[in-house]
Amino acid sequence: MKSFNYKNPTEIIFGNGRIKEIGSLLKGRAKKVLLTTGKGSVKKNGIFDTVVKSLEENGIEYVEYSGIKPNPTLKHAQAGAAFAREEKVDGILALGGGSVVDESKAIAIGACYKGDLWDFYCHKAEPKKSIPLYVILTVPATGSEMNPNGVITNEETNDKWGYRTPLNYPVFSILDPETTLSIPVEYTIAAAIDIMTHSMEAYFSKTDEDSFILDRFVEALVKADLEALERLVKNPKDLEARANIMWTATLAWNGLVNCGAGRHVIVNHVIEHPLSAVYDITHANGLAVLIPASMTYYKEKYQKRLAVFGKNVFGLSGEDEAELADRTIIEFRVLFSRLGVPVSLSEAGINNPDIEYLASQTMKLLGETDLITQKDVEEILKLAL
Amino acid sequence: MKSFNYKNPTEIIFGNGRIKEIGSLLKGRAKKVLLTTGKGSVKKNGIFDTVVKSLEENGIEYVEYSGIKPNPTLKHAQAGAAFAREEKVDGILALGGGSVVDESKAIAIGACYKGDLWDFYCHKAEPKKSIPLYVILTVPATGSEMNPNGVITNEETNDKWGYRTPLNYPVFSILDPETTLSIPVEYTIAAAIDIMTHSMEAYFSKTDEDSFILDRFVEALVKADLEALERLVKNPKDLEARANIMWTATLAWNGLVNCGAGRHVIVNHVIEHPLSAVYDITHANGLAVLIPASMTYYKEKYQKRLAVFGKNVFGLSGEDEAELADRTIIEFRVLFSRLGVPVSLSEAGINNPDIEYLASQTMKLLGETDLITQKDVEEILKLAL
Repeated sequence: MKSFNYKNPTEIIFGNGRIKEIGSLLKGRAKKVLLTTGKGSVKKNGIFDTVVKSLEENGIEYVEYSGIKPNPTLKHAQAGAAFAREEKVDGILALGGGSVVDESKAIAIGACYKGDLWDFYCHKAEPKKSIPLYVILTVPATGSEMNPNGVITNEETNDKWGYRTPLNYPVFSILDPETTLSIPVEYTIAAAIDIMTHSMEAYFSKTDEDSFILDRFVEALVKADLEALERLVKNPKDLEARANIMWTATLAWNGLVNCGAGRHVIVNHVIEHPLSAVYDITHANGLAVLIPASMTYYKEKYQKRLAVFGKNVFGLSGEDEAELADRTIIEFRVLFSRLGVPVSLSEAGINNPDIEYLASQTMKLLGETDLITQKDVEEILKLAL
Repeated sequence: MKSFNYKNPTEIIFGNGRIKEIGSLLKGRAKKVLLTTGKGSVKKNGIFDTVVKSLEENGIEYVEYSGIKPNPTLKHAQAGAAFAREEKVDGILALGGGSVVDESKAIAIGACYKGDLWDFYCHKAEPKKSIPLYVILTVPATGSEMNPNGVITNEETNDKWGYRTPLNYPVFSILDPETTLSIPVEYTIAAAIDIMTHSMEAYFSKTDEDSFILDRFVEALVKADLEALERLVKNPKDLEARANIMWTATLAWNGLVNCGAGRHVIVNHVIEHPLSAVYDITHANGLAVLIPASMTYYKEKYQKRLAVFGKNVFGLSGEDEAELADRTIIEFRVLFSRLGVPVSLSEAGINNPDIEYLASQTMKLLGETDLITQKDVEEILKLAL
């Protein structure tokens, strides 16, 4: 195992019906919050009203900032930061999924900074302070509710870049499985793919070959994710499966799976970000296309762990390691196809993609690195055609 | 899954050679620390000198408080608290295994309290403040380095009681696998048994039957623990296995395995504490005796999960659930016997134990509960004879 530091100060408040606690939880912490939301689904399903009622009962003022999009944009975040400053809020309450949380993180640091918010994302500046962030998660997938990361897309440059700062750990996040009951199955499938990819990124790109506690932990996450998904495809109202997928999503990307993994590139994500920034596809579809491609590209390097993964997660049996590795990749293709998700760029509607440009965008995102080359990225994209 | 709140503020600093960082890590946090140690092994193997050198280089004063025993006692902790007060330390640096950390937790809260330290453990009082606690862990097993729990034995009453307060989370814990290289194999076996028991307590006593992410996580921990143990029995100098067991120990008892498990009794631990307080056996031997006994007692109730556990952890195959459950219990007996650990009270040298008294001590420790009865405890102890 490689050296690591791990600290995660976010408090998780998990359980059915717990969104009602929001007002009392904020009492004594915030007087007036910026309530950030997406495109309105929380208003249709009653969650917004429940939250607002709890805020009012506890004397917490709020101003709403709505309209956050699935790939949150720099301009909208900048405007949100200006609004938060104007309104002199002392807390930001993100109500939504990963995009709402990510943009709220940008607003939280942007509101306390006089320069351009993008400075942080392109590493020109470090935030010195932020407005405390509170989260009510209604769409589990990205893990943003218990990590310091956020992704913002700069519409002008096509850059979809992530940034992490300890200032962006939410103070607390409420995970109320009941709020996720109305999520359509296709969103749940997308979430499950994002969760499994988060779980596996370190597993299939780390330099440390001997951190088996992490390997077993990753396999556990993917198994739970798949079990929940199978149940939800059959019955989207399965509240227990909803609860399991919600907690699995958080555990998959709160830093634990990276502890001890050493330096590595989160290969599918760094290629997917430019892909969905340039072509308008969903994050999960991009990941589903890239997973079998990157596994195929690194098949020899990770043959042993592909075989072990296939045995432990998909229940494969056999002795021939190379054959098991191949079968593991096939299992992913079969799984994604069965779920109606594309497993190639052409299936995703992307014909003749500009591979060189996409790969250069990945390299730009990564900055200086010796872990992957533009050639590697191009080859993975070719395998995804 | 049941409702839960989870927050763990302890920072983990993990990696070979990292004990050397202690001085610089304390700089700005503490001026003078109480350096707590056990019975002297850290002086023989050079760890103490490395730590002291780093403290001196960084201008951190220290006073030593040594002689903490494997089952730390109330009197020694009380004297330590008085000494910490006298010396006006502003930090406590625990250097050792779980016992040193547990007693240091007692000292940290005891030094800031005018009454009797035992008041906390028997729930007569709540601590209002504490001296910040820093840990250098040299013997992984109890998980105390990343949780708010501590166990102290009151020699006068034979009570071995635990207490938890958020004040007792260490600020940081250094986990340096190299410091564990000299641990004798029999200690490593004991540690591995403690770790697997921590992992399994919720799995085999929870009321929630549908939190499968936790189940997979527990199986992952036990598998990693067993893999590390097998390697260390063959080669105690296997540094990678040492690293894996160290991190597994922390993950097994930092609260994660209990998230969503609902109300449950940590059955093996609550019976073992009186057992090792009354009869002078090691904690791990007590656990090894109790695990097959409690599994046998609850076999019908947990038949399905015993079968699943056997398949996922021991690689058992078959369809007959009852038979698989039986075989899982046998696997534990075989494992413990192979490791030279007792699987019955008589093998542990305890003949004609006072079952009624032991069970009453367990019930006293638990306080009011509807989860287990004195009769249940007596029956488990009888199955352990």
